[in-house]
Amino acid sequence: MDIIEILKSRSKDLEPYIVNYLKDGVPDNLMKAVRHYPQAGGKMMRPVVAMVTADAVGGKGKKAAPFGAALELIHNFTLVHDDLMDNDDTRRGFPAVHVKWDMPTAILAGDALFAKAFEILADVDVSDDKLRRLLKLTAQSVWTLAEGQQLDTNFENQPGITVKDYIGMVEKKTSVLFAAAAAGGAIVGGGTEKQVCDMYDYATLLGIAFQLWDDVIGLTGEEKTTGKPIGSDIRNGKRTAIVINALGKGGRGHPLFDELNSILGKADASDEEVRRAIEILDSLGSIEYAKDRAQRYAKCARDKLDCLPESDHKRFLLALADFAVTRKS
Amino acid sequence: MDIIEILKSRSKDLEPYIVNYLKDGVPDNLMKAVRHYPQAGGKMMRPVVAMVTADAVGGKGKKAAPFGAALELIHNFTLVHDDLMDNDDTRRGFPAVHVKWDMPTAILAGDALFAKAFEILADVDVSDDKLRRLLKLTAQSVWTLAEGQQLDTNFENQPGITVKDYIGMVEKKTSVLFAAAAAGGAIVGGGTEKQVCDMYDYATLLGIAFQLWDDVIGLTGEEKTTGKPIGSDIRNGKRTAIVINALGKGGRGHPLFDELNSILGKADASDEEVRRAIEILDSLGSIEYAKDRAQRYAKCARDKLDCLPESDHKRFLLALADFAVTRKS
Repeated sequence: MDIIEILKSRSKDLEPYIVNYLKDGVPDNLMKAVRHYPQAGGKMMRPVVAMVTADAVGGKGKKAAPFGAALELIHNFTLVHDDLMDNDDTRRGFPAVHVKWDMPTAILAGDALFAKAFEILADVDVSDDKLRRLLKLTAQSVWTLAEGQQLDTNFENQPGITVKDYIGMVEKKTSVLFAAAAAGGAIVGGGTEKQVCDMYDYATLLGIAFQLWDDVIGLTGEEKTTGKPIGSDIRNGKRTAIVINALGKGGRGHPLFDELNSILGKADASDEEVRRAIEILDSLGSIEYAKDRAQRYAKCARDKLDCLPESDHKRFLLALADFAVTRKS
Repeated sequence: MDIIEILKSRSKDLEPYIVNYLKDGVPDNLMKAVRHYPQAGGKMMRPVVAMVTADAVGGKGKKAAPFGAALELIHNFTLVHDDLMDNDDTRRGFPAVHVKWDMPTAILAGDALFAKAFEILADVDVSDDKLRRLLKLTAQSVWTLAEGQQLDTNFENQPGITVKDYIGMVEKKTSVLFAAAAAGGAIVGGGTEKQVCDMYDYATLLGIAFQLWDDVIGLTGEEKTTGKPIGSDIRNGKRTAIVINALGKGGRGHPLFDELNSILGKADASDEEVRRAIEILDSLGSIEYAKDRAQRYAKCARDKLDCLPESDHKRFLLALADFAVTRKS
């Protein structure tokens, strides 16, 4: 099963919604900024997950498309604001919104995308009690996303962060919108209460597996495949599960740790230094540790799919969990 | 009728909602930033308007309190982001969120307040068709607010702005959340379709009157009463209706206009220069012009209340329109 091909084909169903929702508005510079990321072609994984889970519980995937589109706009809103906060200059090969325009326009473009998502929700074609559930699920997800982003920022200067802390942050920052997509899709599709809960858990575990694997390929992948400089997490001093695991294995004074510590967070570290840091992390077994944890989360995610009847949709969700921890980009 | 006293007493009903909605969350620095403006004691005009209109159409004002609280959180979210965008350092006598914390925390605190507002909406105790209306009304208002803020920013460097452009921008930036409050209150209160529309128009006109009057007292008031430096609009080069009117009365080469133009937007203008600019605006009749327009908008707002039966609630809304264009702060 070619996950990428299926994502591409499914996201085609979604494009007209996205384009249509964002076609009206003033002034021109704000509207261009609002459309900048949605038009740059993301993978639309969240709306696709929503549509597939709706199908997988026996409903109509297409009925989940507007809800999925709302989540995609929320995802894009968070990217606009995150890039500004993290001072990231490019996204999907284009200049970030705050770079192409400016800080105020980026804040407003994000806010407008956020607002549009909730306007779309008002028209989702489901019974009213389901609408209230989708509304609450979506709004709570955005609250949680903000918590996750703040935790991530705080961790940079906070000693004693554990792998558990890190996973908890990832659950908020990366998983929550996937979880809303999967659970919301199951709600739209008329799934049982157990299916809704299991889909939520599936996507939560999937999101963690994705992030842990991202951390691994960020060190072991190839720049031309991953699309971002290898070892940028090292130069940024990011406390990923890999780094936390390594630092937990020894103390100050141990030559390996001192060497590793001297490179972590060194913004102008040479390629050779970054290569050496990765070598140390590897020799300590920390990369293998993260790989293993990612695969275990993916396995737990797959187990959550037991509640679904056999179908191509279920097979897609199973394959997505495999893809999360085998992909090279 | 003492508007301020009534606002104070009504807003007391709302405080428990606001406090309760914002009590849970992590991490601590984000939560403190989230609560910073709501706790600093705003006038809560939007929720009070929602409650009073619900009463005025024959419903129960208290039933509109959660909807009103949602609007108050949205108002606070826009203040957090606006202060950051406009680089305003203080709010309600306290340091702005981006000053007390930092830019990323201000962005996230605003986003979180925004998310909480929609979570609250999911629980509003109204029939489901009304819930969809409130949701759409609220989401569209935030979209419009972003448009208004962007227009306001664009106008700073855009030649040929007319008073009509300015009023159009004010309608988006200042009126829209009042309009959502008044119309939403009428929806919650079970008003007729005509009442809902008229309440929307009432609050739109009221918002414009408020802003025009704000521009007037920003030049003619006393700093200790208005709470902001007199003439800051002059130093910021803000194209208010007053300035647009004055600049429309003459052309380059006219000594008064040249003098006025040399002071407008001069960040380090002396108090004497600011006083002189105000004198010129006054001598051209532009301050009187804005006063007159404000009063005409307030009159039109009052006329929209004809659809309401006589009651203390209607009298409050009438008095609020008077207050908008007689207040000294």
